[in-house]
Amino acid sequence: MEFKKYLNQQCTVVEQALARYMLTEDGPLANHIRAMRYSLFAGGKRIRPILALAAAEALHSTTEHLLPVACALECIHTYSLIHDDLPAMDDDELRRGKPTCHVVFGEAEAILAGDGLLSFAFELLSHPDAQQGMTPDAQLRMINIIAHAIGPNGMVGGQSLDLAAEGQAISFEHLRLIHGYKTGALITASVQAGAIFGKADEAQFAALSQYGVQIGLAFQIVDDLLDVEGTTEDLGKTAGADAQRSKATYPAFFDIAKTKVLAQEAVDAAVTALEIFDAKAEPLRALARYIYERNN
Amino acid sequence: MEFKKYLNQQCTVVEQALARYMLTEDGPLANHIRAMRYSLFAGGKRIRPILALAAAEALHSTTEHLLPVACALECIHTYSLIHDDLPAMDDDELRRGKPTCHVVFGEAEAILAGDGLLSFAFELLSHPDAQQGMTPDAQLRMINIIAHAIGPNGMVGGQSLDLAAEGQAISFEHLRLIHGYKTGALITASVQAGAIFGKADEAQFAALSQYGVQIGLAFQIVDDLLDVEGTTEDLGKTAGADAQRSKATYPAFFDIAKTKVLAQEAVDAAVTALEIFDAKAEPLRALARYIYERNN
Repeated sequence: MEFKKYLNQQCTVVEQALARYMLTEDGPLANHIRAMRYSLFAGGKRIRPILALAAAEALHSTTEHLLPVACALECIHTYSLIHDDLPAMDDDELRRGKPTCHVVFGEAEAILAGDGLLSFAFELLSHPDAQQGMTPDAQLRMINIIAHAIGPNGMVGGQSLDLAAEGQAISFEHLRLIHGYKTGALITASVQAGAIFGKADEAQFAALSQYGVQIGLAFQIVDDLLDVEGTTEDLGKTAGADAQRSKATYPAFFDIAKTKVLAQEAVDAAVTALEIFDAKAEPLRALARYIYERNN
Repeated sequence: MEFKKYLNQQCTVVEQALARYMLTEDGPLANHIRAMRYSLFAGGKRIRPILALAAAEALHSTTEHLLPVACALECIHTYSLIHDDLPAMDDDELRRGKPTCHVVFGEAEAILAGDGLLSFAFELLSHPDAQQGMTPDAQLRMINIIAHAIGPNGMVGGQSLDLAAEGQAISFEHLRLIHGYKTGALITASVQAGAIFGKADEAQFAALSQYGVQIGLAFQIVDDLLDVEGTTEDLGKTAGADAQRSKATYPAFFDIAKTKVLAQEAVDAAVTALEIFDAKAEPLRALARYIYERNN
């Protein structure tokens, strides 16, 4: 119960920061900005920004000046959803219970809304406001880690592998690789951003990174489960889409029960990685459990 | 003649740096990297990286550690071409005399190749190699300027305006706005990146920015002219494409002769902006003239 309250509070903090930093719909660029805002304010759970804030909190850091970074992470996540949903990609018409960006604004503007959000994210990551909370060296390291995590050797590469694997017989190792790149990399980088902001030492950074890797894994396993077990109404996106596109998923390799065990194991490993932290890491621990409980 | 030699030399320097920094085609991501490399090594003139290097040279700076930034600018430019050429956008099948990225790799992979190049650009911009040549503060300022120049209030916004203006009667002021965002912003930011790297003082930064704005303008006017006067063979892309899509251009507002005068005026203004610099700014001056002479 208390954790739900924490989650709602943090979500509000992120929403308010997004409203403050995001461009407003006026002037000649109003339509472009409207397309970006449409997807950015479509009711996301703000997991990645909240993870960054919670990681900094685990290190006893205040988080006010981490907010531009938190917003950047959400802009990046939103851009990835817009592009993944495009007709040339997953061709999804529903996201968070609303028509996808390209359905409302057309394909060209949806591509540009994604491009705009990605570029804007790096404007936020290098924002003077963020410079108040950390050294320029720390900020550069953070930018480098995030850029790496979302690029060819990360999120974008993962989407490329995912598309190539459609309808193909792939190994379980390959599935893990795709998941790690496509979903895990940005989740891990979000935790690492908070770790850098919170001035983590080497051991703390390693522990938080391990936590990030494990919840990234849990997140994707649960996502695979939701696609099988959820309804379109619950999900706010088309249920059963993975099977329809012959996508490799955890439930395609294991039965549902075993898949749930694997998700639980990843959550346990994430919590174990946080052993060196005190009670300030409680929100991170609860977040790991929350990811599993999305489905249960 | 001597300038041609300079241009070839600098082009080689940039090509070699791109070859050094760019990912190689192996491992599971080979196809994704191949798509990025296909467009990146399709024979661009490397104008933006060369402008950054020349701006630093005008400030008597060595440029070795500016190369990751120079490569990033070319990655950004290439991503913008890949996305602009997509079927949902300008739907061009030819670029630099070769089939466009989506023709060779499919639409989905072309979108991802662009996304990958854009993300990778920020990995380069925050690269430890670049940190050897400037303070972290300078590097962050550079990232912020480039991110702003290519985002919603820059290049991406310009492409959105450009698409919206197709077939519409727009004012000359609106055309200038589109050009400034779509083409001018990244060119200006490239010069500014070199200025920051070269430790420009306030007056020098303002002068180089003004130079950037004017050559950006000249560049776009000449591009409009080339579309009217060039052949598909000369251009390496489809000639007459603007008129075919009812795009507003300079020659649609003025006759050819007047358009040439306006381009020449922009070049002159760019050279005038460099008055405070010595002979080390000669390559920048020659670059401004070269932009005009592309068409003459």
